[in-house]
Amino acid sequence: MAKSSIIGIDLGATNLKCALLDNDLKIKAKNYFNTKSFDNKLKLIQGITDSINNFILLHGISRNSVSGVGIGLPGPVDTFKGVVHFLPNIPGWKEVRLKEILERKTGLPVFIDNDAKLMALAEYRSGQAKKYKNALCLTLGTGVGGGLIINGSLYRGGDNAAGEIGHLPLNEKGPLCPCGGSACLEAYIGNASILKEARKLFGPRITLEKVSALAKANNSKAIDLWIKVGERLGIALSGVINLLNLDVIVIGGGVSDAGKVLFESVRKTINLRAMSVQAKRVKIFKARLGNDAGIIGAGFLVKERQIR
Amino acid sequence: MAKSSIIGIDLGATNLKCALLDNDLKIKAKNYFNTKSFDNKLKLIQGITDSINNFILLHGISRNSVSGVGIGLPGPVDTFKGVVHFLPNIPGWKEVRLKEILERKTGLPVFIDNDAKLMALAEYRSGQAKKYKNALCLTLGTGVGGGLIINGSLYRGGDNAAGEIGHLPLNEKGPLCPCGGSACLEAYIGNASILKEARKLFGPRITLEKVSALAKANNSKAIDLWIKVGERLGIALSGVINLLNLDVIVIGGGVSDAGKVLFESVRKTINLRAMSVQAKRVKIFKARLGNDAGIIGAGFLVKERQIR
Repeated sequence: MAKSSIIGIDLGATNLKCALLDNDLKIKAKNYFNTKSFDNKLKLIQGITDSINNFILLHGISRNSVSGVGIGLPGPVDTFKGVVHFLPNIPGWKEVRLKEILERKTGLPVFIDNDAKLMALAEYRSGQAKKYKNALCLTLGTGVGGGLIINGSLYRGGDNAAGEIGHLPLNEKGPLCPCGGSACLEAYIGNASILKEARKLFGPRITLEKVSALAKANNSKAIDLWIKVGERLGIALSGVINLLNLDVIVIGGGVSDAGKVLFESVRKTINLRAMSVQAKRVKIFKARLGNDAGIIGAGFLVKERQIR
Repeated sequence: MAKSSIIGIDLGATNLKCALLDNDLKIKAKNYFNTKSFDNKLKLIQGITDSINNFILLHGISRNSVSGVGIGLPGPVDTFKGVVHFLPNIPGWKEVRLKEILERKTGLPVFIDNDAKLMALAEYRSGQAKKYKNALCLTLGTGVGGGLIINGSLYRGGDNAAGEIGHLPLNEKGPLCPCGGSACLEAYIGNASILKEARKLFGPRITLEKVSALAKANNSKAIDLWIKVGERLGIALSGVINLLNLDVIVIGGGVSDAGKVLFESVRKTINLRAMSVQAKRVKIFKARLGNDAGIIGAGFLVKERQIR
């Protein structure tokens, strides 16, 4: 019997998103949960299990017709062994054999991976990086994460830890970073750092959404703030494209909603700082799949693994 | 008839090295020429042609038994079209169809590529990066160049321009770089910059070889100078391994002869600045093939292309 459904799950520190997808990865049904509403690791795993089982029950699907469950997680994952090493922003997860646990609980094939990698896979297979052989897809949010497509496939590196664009040093010396390093890009343009700058300019009640709105309304302080973020990102990306001669860089995550002023600053900085051949080659796009990128990437993970 | 010989050529701004190699890339004969002894581009191309023809004549080889000529060049090259875009340190080369010209002059298949890429290929196939899937091989000299091995093959990027580790920004602001950017790694640790520092410490007649000798004789100023070079290189490499989760970094070129003090400083900086998983994975080695890396890489280029 042909497999006709895939379940895609995107676990974030804020939301647990679960979706029922058809074989073309169109979303048939979607459930959001507040991640913090699950008291601990065991309850969160049970929540994921229940969500999977509910899709099957409520939609009258036979378990045999589900080709698999794909899950993106916000932290380092051994995708081949199916182990979550740890989740920096969700307490209690350490070396969790999630694939094995969920396969036992659901009777379905389960595949897990890092969420930024799955977003990159989704943008490559069906978003803004489609048809480009060499791409960096990055998300600007609390963390600055990324996934690399190299020679047309997701590049993992020796420990499935590649893609950490947020931890490129931007200066020889600079602010400490939670990763243990210092002067990392994330320490300058992660949400917390941008918000700190914004509070100096606009007072304690400002939010990044408001800074974006102010910039769109031509507030010069807000515009300058996003230009500075774009310059810093552009300097780091100049190094990446000099090294990798990429075809495309796709930028997503909440901060990317700052829009035109941010993207223009990134592009201008790359033209100024990167080597001319590399700068000419690379396209800079806003991510297309938005909030669904993680779910769809999880669906692609299932499709790619099941083929092997 | 089985092909039994390959000709490998490494054109540098200082030396033109030509070698006759057997099918296992063992060097059978080698000629060095002073690149500057050729007055212009046409004479240099004729010099390369003569050198190829002389090997065949002097060693009594039939032209049919030569599987090809491989050539490494110090600048951007379209390896597939066989065109040299330009050579920053050898005047008069602009969009030269070198493959076509030499094939006509010699009657042999000719393959050309950027020299840093061929050094990386050589270290990957028969040097310190052997058996590692993901590697960066870099050369520290007048320029800071590099070649990447990704998933077990030479990574080129969209324009065959990947690998430019020398042009990773080390700071947001810093000295201008000949590439057009600023604060590039090469602007801090290229030969000229190190020599400038050394002259401040040891007077105008110092050479980098002497600084290395002084460091080995425990001169603390010389040691500090190499430690600083190692720190700067280590910071840039921390970003690269965070991004690429590499298995190995191989360092060659004249500056790498500074030896232990330099390599220890690089390693220490990586342990301090890079993410722990990535830092634990990566090995840092000195290049093994030394002066012959370019010639041998040119030989591997012929072998890889002829198989297709």
